[in-house]
Amino acid sequence: MSLDAVLARIDDQLPAATDRLLELLRIPSISTDPAYKQPCSEAADWLVEDLKSLGIKAEKRITLGHPMVVGHVAGDGPHLLFYGHYDVQPVDPLELWDSDPFAPCVEETPKGRVIRGRGSSDDKGQLMTFVEACRAWREVNGALPCAITFFFEGEEESGSPSLVPFMTENADELRADIALICDTGLFQSRTPAIVTMLRGMVGEQITVQGPDMDLHSGFFGGLAMNPIRALSKILADIHDDEGRVTIPGFYDGIPDLSPEMRAQWEALGFDWQGFLGSVGLSQPAGEADRTPLEMIWSRPTAEVNGIWGGYTGDGFKTVLPAKAHAKISFRLVEGQDPDRIRDAFRAFVRARLPQDCRIEFKPHGGSAASVMETSDPAFEAARQALSEEWPEPAAYVGCGGSIPIAGHFGSILGMNAMLIGFGKDDDAIHSPNEKYDLESFHKGIRSWARILDALSRKGAA
Amino acid sequence: MSLDAVLARIDDQLPAATDRLLELLRIPSISTDPAYKQPCSEAADWLVEDLKSLGIKAEKRITLGHPMVVGHVAGDGPHLLFYGHYDVQPVDPLELWDSDPFAPCVEETPKGRVIRGRGSSDDKGQLMTFVEACRAWREVNGALPCAITFFFEGEEESGSPSLVPFMTENADELRADIALICDTGLFQSRTPAIVTMLRGMVGEQITVQGPDMDLHSGFFGGLAMNPIRALSKILADIHDDEGRVTIPGFYDGIPDLSPEMRAQWEALGFDWQGFLGSVGLSQPAGEADRTPLEMIWSRPTAEVNGIWGGYTGDGFKTVLPAKAHAKISFRLVEGQDPDRIRDAFRAFVRARLPQDCRIEFKPHGGSAASVMETSDPAFEAARQALSEEWPEPAAYVGCGGSIPIAGHFGSILGMNAMLIGFGKDDDAIHSPNEKYDLESFHKGIRSWARILDALSRKGAA
Repeated sequence: MSLDAVLARIDDQLPAATDRLLELLRIPSISTDPAYKQPCSEAADWLVEDLKSLGIKAEKRITLGHPMVVGHVAGDGPHLLFYGHYDVQPVDPLELWDSDPFAPCVEETPKGRVIRGRGSSDDKGQLMTFVEACRAWREVNGALPCAITFFFEGEEESGSPSLVPFMTENADELRADIALICDTGLFQSRTPAIVTMLRGMVGEQITVQGPDMDLHSGFFGGLAMNPIRALSKILADIHDDEGRVTIPGFYDGIPDLSPEMRAQWEALGFDWQGFLGSVGLSQPAGEADRTPLEMIWSRPTAEVNGIWGGYTGDGFKTVLPAKAHAKISFRLVEGQDPDRIRDAFRAFVRARLPQDCRIEFKPHGGSAASVMETSDPAFEAARQALSEEWPEPAAYVGCGGSIPIAGHFGSILGMNAMLIGFGKDDDAIHSPNEKYDLESFHKGIRSWARILDALSRKGAA
Repeated sequence: MSLDAVLARIDDQLPAATDRLLELLRIPSISTDPAYKQPCSEAADWLVEDLKSLGIKAEKRITLGHPMVVGHVAGDGPHLLFYGHYDVQPVDPLELWDSDPFAPCVEETPKGRVIRGRGSSDDKGQLMTFVEACRAWREVNGALPCAITFFFEGEEESGSPSLVPFMTENADELRADIALICDTGLFQSRTPAIVTMLRGMVGEQITVQGPDMDLHSGFFGGLAMNPIRALSKILADIHDDEGRVTIPGFYDGIPDLSPEMRAQWEALGFDWQGFLGSVGLSQPAGEADRTPLEMIWSRPTAEVNGIWGGYTGDGFKTVLPAKAHAKISFRLVEGQDPDRIRDAFRAFVRARLPQDCRIEFKPHGGSAASVMETSDPAFEAARQALSEEWPEPAAYVGCGGSIPIAGHFGSILGMNAMLIGFGKDDDAIHSPNEKYDLESFHKGIRSWARILDALSRKGAA
């Protein structure tokens, strides 16, 4: 088995690989819109056929929603599972696209060639980096280097309603030594990265009720409790002047960052001024004694995602409203239990509720943070493989968002997961004019070839 | 001139007076809806004809909006101006009405007979109490007891856009010794009342901007300033724990209630528990060292009338929004200057704005409080006249709302105004099934006869 030959094959076959991706991108597999049910099914069929062309036993598997694609190939050494999703986001507002989102093309730009089209980065382009690496490997070596299970879903952009039931029902079939997920990006569009921490989330919608009905602020104002006043006090109390969350017990049990991880993160030279500057901000707003990377990766947050109450139209209406509402979410990190945080928040709110107000809580979601076991030698093997492909050494990074699939591999299948992806910050995923750099695609394929080589040679997983 | 004969005539003619009111109520003079322009004009015509039948020189006067009705009758003694409005509120939601809002009738209810229909209380019924008192007086005595100017507008329920221009242009014609306004109610549906204090108002809409665009709270949460957090802190700071407004200088220059007024208010025995209890509340929310009546009548307030920002739909969207908004209004009392309060509020907000936020202010309205000169002997004369008609002695009261017309008489025409009305708390003005108690109508007419007698005999005004 020669890795160099595989890499050369990848370079040689890049135009053909790109053409295949363009074909997949032409299928408008928007999962959230029932009008696109058929294209979603077609995208699944396309993947089944493509996997079959690699000698993989692949099937479309029916769910209550969009189908899954599952493929298996036997082999020696570690058993890998690769996950990606073939569904894409809606394209509205369509008028902001410079070209048809489902008529993809390779475009020359001042920053290099890009593959333009909905799903080019999220996640069809990323998904195909792994498939193309497998193809080149097989074409050069006649077979894949180890046992691989391919697992593609078509509901990632619409809440993955079928995912947990499917994984639970097919746990034995899906279980492997390690999961590989390609749905993330390069750190600051430059440094290859393996995500080892994902924040969890707890959401709560609260409604503070004062009077039974909306009142006239002339007749009642000054005498009757205004629920917006009560809500503002509660929300204002959540953070102290140092950006710390004041909910009792909120930080209990959170481990400090290991010295190794801290050193790696410092070495990343995170340009937080540029990161904040790109959205018109200049000051880190989190805990004053933490670094910006800690604020978004390894520290929990409390954010009000929405607030409303009273009259919000044009002009003025001097109403003293009956109710005021807010949607609050907490990003959780290692050591925080979603139920405990929810309870602590509710107690915090109740303790601040004026006697004349009532409160209603509506829970939304609740998932713990995911922390990968980087002691698994597969991590170090993959990190070295990535470092060989890219100009900068690869890093372990955090991710402030929640990628539920990573947690599911742990909780349902008992597997560790490595999140490795090649997206860039300007890919405009979920937005008009989505693109994937041809460099991301090309070096992404090469990266997976190197990782396949590393994991199978070392039997690391 | 015999007052007793006039009162007897009023009792005798109540059915005919009621029929005339029902006729006026049948005209759907909804001023805010352009579709009802013609009925508004018809209501003005109806009033012109009715005034003419009393020997009054009356005219419909064209404005850019709905017409005014102005009538004059000469006479000895004081010159009174009477103001009312012939336009009414819209009737939606129509399905909540038990009968056609513009097919009025007299209805027996467990609490007595009521005149049911849109405008029965606000303000056609109230307006006609004065007209019917004049009619009875003239029928008994052959002429009215003094010079009277009648001034009816048709835009009160839609912001009175033509009022100030019309009053300014016709100031000499409209100026009289005192204005009588019939658009208020009995205190707690029981005690005849003359409003001597009206709160003013200043409104401000504020927009706090954090980042340039909405952000994903997973990627930016904890690091980027959330404008809802900043807005909550600002709003929460407006009141201290004792219900006081903390804006520097907010209470400067406000006189304390005179001992006489305080004694009168105490004698009213305000059932604030019942008042708050009727809307599901139990605790006065204003300044802890003030009485409930002071809170709604003679003390200024700060209320958030509306708040919005971020995602407010169903479910959850973990957005960190670019902007958060609030509409805040201040009810002002004697001694407070609207411009000074607006400036003080803006300075208060700016002082609390995080470095990474921008602020935008949008002013709305700005009117000072009106305080009537109760030293004018007309007030004491009217109060005694009311006390003779009703079971309880009449009182000087405050009104927490703003009735701009009262201020205009002072500022444009240099006149004092007496606000006297007979509405009850359950009249459902602006709501479905509006009614006016036949008792309010009957004793209202009798009250005006007594007041006309008192003011003309004493030459008090």
